[in-house]
Amino acid sequence: MDVKYKFIVTKIAEDISSGIYKETKKLPTVEELMEFYNVSRSTIRQAISTLVDRGLIYQVQGSGIFLRTNPEGCINLQYMRGLSGDFSKEKISTKVLELKVIKADKELAQKMKCKEDTEIYFIKRLRYIDDEEYMVEYSYYNKDIVPYLNIEITEKSIYSYINENLKLNIGFSDKVIYCEPLTAEHSELLKLKEGEGSLVIEDTVFLTNGLLFDTSKCIYNYKYAKILSLSNFK
Amino acid sequence: MDVKYKFIVTKIAEDISSGIYKETKKLPTVEELMEFYNVSRSTIRQAISTLVDRGLIYQVQGSGIFLRTNPEGCINLQYMRGLSGDFSKEKISTKVLELKVIKADKELAQKMKCKEDTEIYFIKRLRYIDDEEYMVEYSYYNKDIVPYLNIEITEKSIYSYINENLKLNIGFSDKVIYCEPLTAEHSELLKLKEGEGSLVIEDTVFLTNGLLFDTSKCIYNYKYAKILSLSNFK
Repeated sequence: MDVKYKFIVTKIAEDISSGIYKETKKLPTVEELMEFYNVSRSTIRQAISTLVDRGLIYQVQGSGIFLRTNPEGCINLQYMRGLSGDFSKEKISTKVLELKVIKADKELAQKMKCKEDTEIYFIKRLRYIDDEEYMVEYSYYNKDIVPYLNIEITEKSIYSYINENLKLNIGFSDKVIYCEPLTAEHSELLKLKEGEGSLVIEDTVFLTNGLLFDTSKCIYNYKYAKILSLSNFK
Repeated sequence: MDVKYKFIVTKIAEDISSGIYKETKKLPTVEELMEFYNVSRSTIRQAISTLVDRGLIYQVQGSGIFLRTNPEGCINLQYMRGLSGDFSKEKISTKVLELKVIKADKELAQKMKCKEDTEIYFIKRLRYIDDEEYMVEYSYYNKDIVPYLNIEITEKSIYSYINENLKLNIGFSDKVIYCEPLTAEHSELLKLKEGEGSLVIEDTVFLTNGLLFDTSKCIYNYKYAKILSLSNFK
């Protein structure tokens, strides 16, 4: 049963993001889903309850199961889809400004929960959406976990590489979001003025086994960057 | 079984936020939880899986169930706890700058998914944390749903009033987060400089039945405001 409901959760989430419910913004009834997946009411209920928790749908007693809004072109916080997931209709390009191996000093070691002197890939990238300067990214990967990176890989999605090529299971991340005045360097890179605000996301990313493999700081162009978050009241 | 696992989810979430696991950052084993709650393995599994989805814990095969970090003093996105929930150790105070009933024009009616000319409470508040100017808030409540508000209520937590006095079930919210230059008025209120950045959260809040009752725009002092988000990789 555990496996069955998870399969249904994945399937319905895919259906939602593929847009098949975008006209009605409504899911089939519980009975229809039971028949379609050939499972019990409690399995469908469990799947629905998980999708509610994930912020994808909401239920109205006696009326049905409805989709929550999830516009494109926003940074989606609930799920790390990466830039290419969040902007599937736009052209994304990346300029690698720096790529090198460094040794973790005390501060970095603390941040990355590793020993001092651990080898760390340091990458600085400028990322564009539809040829507009969208963000400056500083990222750090523990080389004991991500043993190899090069310019070719870092010009594309590093996460796809880690997931598909290294077969590592990216699990979850803690993000801190705030606003910070632009430095001279970042304002130049993003074609903004020094002292203007920027939207910043600091990210600490773990494998499913709880191992910290990546930390990053992204400085977003405030003119384009919007974050979307679907929350539940508890 | 549905009710049982939800009860356990609530109970464990409360235990986590009360800090009883803060030393070990580890939950009891599945077997211990089964015994404690006197339920089956599948019920505990379902509760654990929900808590993983909510970003509260993670599991390491063969090693246990661990707490994710959830520092105080951050705006928590996963759960709308309100300022008093996010800053339980700090002193919060509120100055109501404006409170009036207006009629929804076309734009507001669209935003609040109501008919034009619907009566709407408009509230403008300045909120302080430990006597520092923390945010300017513009909020709108549909008067058909929230029939009465006054200065006394709006000086405290409007959500507690709605929840506890009006017995309405606040369900979920869509938040858009971005960074915007401060206007002359907001910079004066927050004691910052015009043109400096501010962290903005626009919120659209629904009852559990899907009814939109509140929209708001909060302009945060970038020197103090930090948002925390715990995401899962999907």
